[in-house]
Amino acid sequence: MLTMTINHQVRLASRPVGLPKRADWSFTEEPVAEPGDGTFLVKILYISLDPAMRGWLNESRSYIAPVAIGDVMRALALGRVIASNHPRFAAGDDVSGPFGVQEYTLSDGKHVLKVDPDLAPLPVHLSALGMTGRTAYFGLLEVGQLKPGDVVVVSAAAGAVGSVVGQIARIKGCRAVGIAGGAEKCRYIVDELGFDAAIDYKTQDVRAALKEHCPNGIDVYFDNVGGHILEAALARLARGARIVICGAISQYNVTGPPKGPSNYMALLVHRASMKGFLAGDYAARDDEATQALAAWRTSGTLRSREHIVEGLETFPDTLIKLFTGDHLGKLIIKVADE
Amino acid sequence: MLTMTINHQVRLASRPVGLPKRADWSFTEEPVAEPGDGTFLVKILYISLDPAMRGWLNESRSYIAPVAIGDVMRALALGRVIASNHPRFAAGDDVSGPFGVQEYTLSDGKHVLKVDPDLAPLPVHLSALGMTGRTAYFGLLEVGQLKPGDVVVVSAAAGAVGSVVGQIARIKGCRAVGIAGGAEKCRYIVDELGFDAAIDYKTQDVRAALKEHCPNGIDVYFDNVGGHILEAALARLARGARIVICGAISQYNVTGPPKGPSNYMALLVHRASMKGFLAGDYAARDDEATQALAAWRTSGTLRSREHIVEGLETFPDTLIKLFTGDHLGKLIIKVADE
Repeated sequence: MLTMTINHQVRLASRPVGLPKRADWSFTEEPVAEPGDGTFLVKILYISLDPAMRGWLNESRSYIAPVAIGDVMRALALGRVIASNHPRFAAGDDVSGPFGVQEYTLSDGKHVLKVDPDLAPLPVHLSALGMTGRTAYFGLLEVGQLKPGDVVVVSAAAGAVGSVVGQIARIKGCRAVGIAGGAEKCRYIVDELGFDAAIDYKTQDVRAALKEHCPNGIDVYFDNVGGHILEAALARLARGARIVICGAISQYNVTGPPKGPSNYMALLVHRASMKGFLAGDYAARDDEATQALAAWRTSGTLRSREHIVEGLETFPDTLIKLFTGDHLGKLIIKVADE
Repeated sequence: MLTMTINHQVRLASRPVGLPKRADWSFTEEPVAEPGDGTFLVKILYISLDPAMRGWLNESRSYIAPVAIGDVMRALALGRVIASNHPRFAAGDDVSGPFGVQEYTLSDGKHVLKVDPDLAPLPVHLSALGMTGRTAYFGLLEVGQLKPGDVVVVSAAAGAVGSVVGQIARIKGCRAVGIAGGAEKCRYIVDELGFDAAIDYKTQDVRAALKEHCPNGIDVYFDNVGGHILEAALARLARGARIVICGAISQYNVTGPPKGPSNYMALLVHRASMKGFLAGDYAARDDEATQALAAWRTSGTLRSREHIVEGLETFPDTLIKLFTGDHLGKLIIKVADE
């Protein structure tokens, strides 16, 4: 029966210059193959949209190989096992992994996690309880070496990772200041997520606002955006501050060289550090993070919002929402009904 | 008798724009006062010239207050106590401290260290055995978290700090690659100081040369210069690399905004860190560092060269040598005969 099923896919057709265009993608279809020995077939339900995807489209060396022209676009996704010849995965299991922008995939189980549907609705396993939540968790606690009482500033604070960072800071007894674009996002992070303060970079002078909200300086700055907001944070560091480099979304679509922080010598002035990381480096501790995040979510101290767009075919347009800021919370494409 | 002695001084007359000019300084003289209770009088013999001095001339906030217009220029110096009403310092003691660009100073002992003239000639206590050596020591070992077998790259490698950094790296069982300007400096660090390799940034493609000399990447990059050399090092990091931010001499005299490293996201790609520091933060361990540096110097594994210019009145011109690279080793002004 499966051989009659068609897998629709989104493939990279050409390397984008600047913001990816519709023409940079091609749509293909092929029959779904049956799983061979040691593999299983996943029907994809939800696809995670992440700013890091933009980096995967560039030819230059990075932490992971670029997506090749003609390949199915790389993506984290969540699906259900529908046939298995793998000892650890059975039909009916809900799983997350690097399944790609398509409707079905065969997997050997590498980098695949089983997901507990009783913990939270499935899309949440791609947001607060997924790689997104673990990025916030390990970035803030391990890379940022968070201590009680720290003043934490996070950029893209209404975004998937940023919103979790600020809430973990609060849970850990710290002050959380979020930088976001627009009144709605600022209201959301303060009124719904419990941040201590929000700075609207579209209408406020970020340096002046940081001075107001962090009179004694920033202890941990969790950066998702780079550019002039990173510079504003560098200008307001407390002694011994830690800057966690998670992303630089403001620079991902520039066509010239990205902007480096011109005042990086603030690191010397304030004896501060700036450190990059990937959540995947802490994979051995995934369980710990998922359990902690799930417990906070169950108790109501950690909230998340998922912005779900329906239809695989929307991928080229939905991806762009990541960079235009035209969403709130975690951006997800729904591919099929649960 | 002392009241008849005249103290010649160099004072800041105006804030330099770009490279400091002669007109930015004024020369003054005043009678030497006798030391009051709890103070002592120092006859200054040698003055340390350091790139950090340029930063002290700017009005902007830094790790230390700017030198005020009209003040005696701040400088580390070495001198001899010639009269004392202080319980810990006696006439005849050799001392180093923030004595300023002048011939005499009164001190209350704050930030003043006694110097052992039997350990090394006096000027060496301003270079390899002074703050310069301690900057290399704590920067490489503590901030850089040096491990045996690391590949260490240092910029301004023929300079006062850089030359000690490379030698400590060798002493600790690491590979030392120095970046310096010109064939003479490159020859000096390899042939006389024992670096494994030298890169002449004036004639070589630094990125290509780093690829050649560090095929498996850089574990510790000790940066004294900033600018495009920092970018070249970022482009060649090993996984988990540590960048030690000690200085940015290429940017100190620019009149626009300094250049930030446009490829700082290499920190994420390589899970690397960039950290600033000041040797003074480790003052409680000054003795440990001085003893280690002195032992290495005595055994012949640590060498230093002092470039000594005679005469307080040369200060405006001698300072500029720091930035034109027209010297080798530690730049010192000799103020008086020992």
